[in-house]
Amino acid sequence: MKKDFAVIGLGRFGGSICKELSDKGMHVLAIDSDEAKVNEYKNIAYHSVVLDATDEDALKEIGITNFDHVIVAIGENIQASILTAVILTDLDIKRITVKAQNDYHDKILNRIGVHHVVHPERDMGKRLAHSFISNNILEYLELSNEYSIVEVIAGRKMIGKTLISLDVRAKFGCNIVAIKSGSEIDVSPEADKPLKEGDILIIIGADHDINRFEKALIFD
Amino acid sequence: MKKDFAVIGLGRFGGSICKELSDKGMHVLAIDSDEAKVNEYKNIAYHSVVLDATDEDALKEIGITNFDHVIVAIGENIQASILTAVILTDLDIKRITVKAQNDYHDKILNRIGVHHVVHPERDMGKRLAHSFISNNILEYLELSNEYSIVEVIAGRKMIGKTLISLDVRAKFGCNIVAIKSGSEIDVSPEADKPLKEGDILIIIGADHDINRFEKALIFD
Ligand SMILES: Nc1ncnc2c1ncn2[C@@H]1O[C@H](COP(=O)(O)OP(=O)(O)OP(=O)(O)O)[C@@H](O)[C@H]1O
Ligand SMILES: Nc1ncnc2c1ncn2[C@@H]1O[C@H](COP(=O)(O)OP(=O)(O)OP(=O)(O)O)[C@@H](O)[C@H]1O
Ligand SMILES: [Ca+2]
Ligand SMILES: [Ca+2]
Ligand SMILES: [Ca+2]
Ligand SMILES: [Ca+2]
Repeated sequence: MKKDFAVIGLGRFGGSICKELSDKGMHVLAIDSDEAKVNEYKNIAYHSVVLDATDEDALKEIGITNFDHVIVAIGENIQASILTAVILTDLDIKRITVKAQNDYHDKILNRIGVHHVVHPERDMGKRLAHSFISNNILEYLELSNEYSIVEVIAGRKMIGKTLISLDVRAKFGCNIVAIKSGSEIDVSPEADKPLKEGDILIIIGADHDINRFEKALIFD
Repeated sequence: MKKDFAVIGLGRFGGSICKELSDKGMHVLAIDSDEAKVNEYKNIAYHSVVLDATDEDALKEIGITNFDHVIVAIGENIQASILTAVILTDLDIKRITVKAQNDYHDKILNRIGVHHVVHPERDMGKRLAHSFISNNILEYLELSNEYSIVEVIAGRKMIGKTLISLDVRAKFGCNIVAIKSGSEIDVSPEADKPLKEGDILIIIGADHDINRFEKALIFD
């Protein structure tokens, strides 16, 4: 069951969604009111069309109701984003994702009946900020308010030690689920293999447990 | 060893970095040429100042060289972003992160000597696109070109089965590293506990192994 996608607004965010979905073999209709943008995605998307998404008739004409998931990635023009969202919810599109510019915009979209509102710049800022705090933290994925997955460079104190001797699970309550060495990733790391300098650990656990682990073994 | 951060450009991305670093107790100097923006972050950041970052003297005056990490999150005005990056690299700032608008901008920043260039909209678009392809895929973290961590809703075929009986590691080569049930997350999931409807699995593995697993057990 392959889904049909329409992406409205081919800025950096919408354009990236269009490209990634197309790369994965999905059929994407790329829509923008700017002809130059549409031309950029002509050879990437399955279909592309120049169209003002606030024009309900134009959307109906291209059969927007046949799409399983419509993504609205109109940015600065909040009014156009909201108007487009109203049209799409009125047409009972199955799944609508809309990019919000701020909390006010988010609130209105929710009120209209859009169920999936995203804040790409805000979420990515939050993610990156975590990795900035320590040079050792490379990646960060929030699983919930309390739990995360982090990618950290093995601390000096860990080099030459095995996972058994470090006993991270018992001592800190978090788990090392994978180890990256150069371009290799081991998702079933052996308990008796000593860690090397530059090894990158992927850790899952409660935030306070990960913090304890980092303070003890990662930060100098 | 607490680092001092300066964030130049308080749009959605820069503003989010400023807020998250401040929330984590870091000292952040918030900079924007727009006074209204600076006022928004006055009570969030440790310090804030209205300043045109392309003005080298102004940057020196506020002691920009004392900061450990300077983040440039100027958007649309690519020229201002590049000029600011040149000033900061000339001043030998230890760590400089710059948001790029496109590949051309990225290339120039690299040529100037900026080592950390980020594309928040593009990266978040890519991440979200993955979660759009299947309603069951909730989160996606790329570990490398070949390996990922994904968060998926347990498929109908998995409900009532234990991890032992599913034997995901042997059959598909990927590992279930955590299970979310409601607001609970178990990062050491027991092998003999049956999965419930709505359980969310966090899986690590090679992309092709995760794909095989998803096709067999997640997608209907
Ligand atoms: N009414 C509309 N119908 C169709 N496309 C539109 C409409 N209004 C704006 N767009 C398009 O949406 C795209 C994204 O808008 P804009 O560049 O303002 O957003 P942005 O938030 O800066 O995006 P990003 O940060 O993802 O680059 C633009 O290419 C623009 O032409
Ligand atoms: N020369 C400069 N010095 C200081 N701040 C600047 C300068 N030029 C632009 N800025 C500020 O940078 C901020 C971000 O710029 P802009 O809104 O164009 O980026 P954007 O890509 O749309 O951001 P985002 O998508 O993160 O919201 C703005 O608040 C703007 O005032
Ligand atoms: Ca724009
Ligand atoms: Ca943006
Ligand atoms: Ca998330
Ligand atoms: Ca802007």
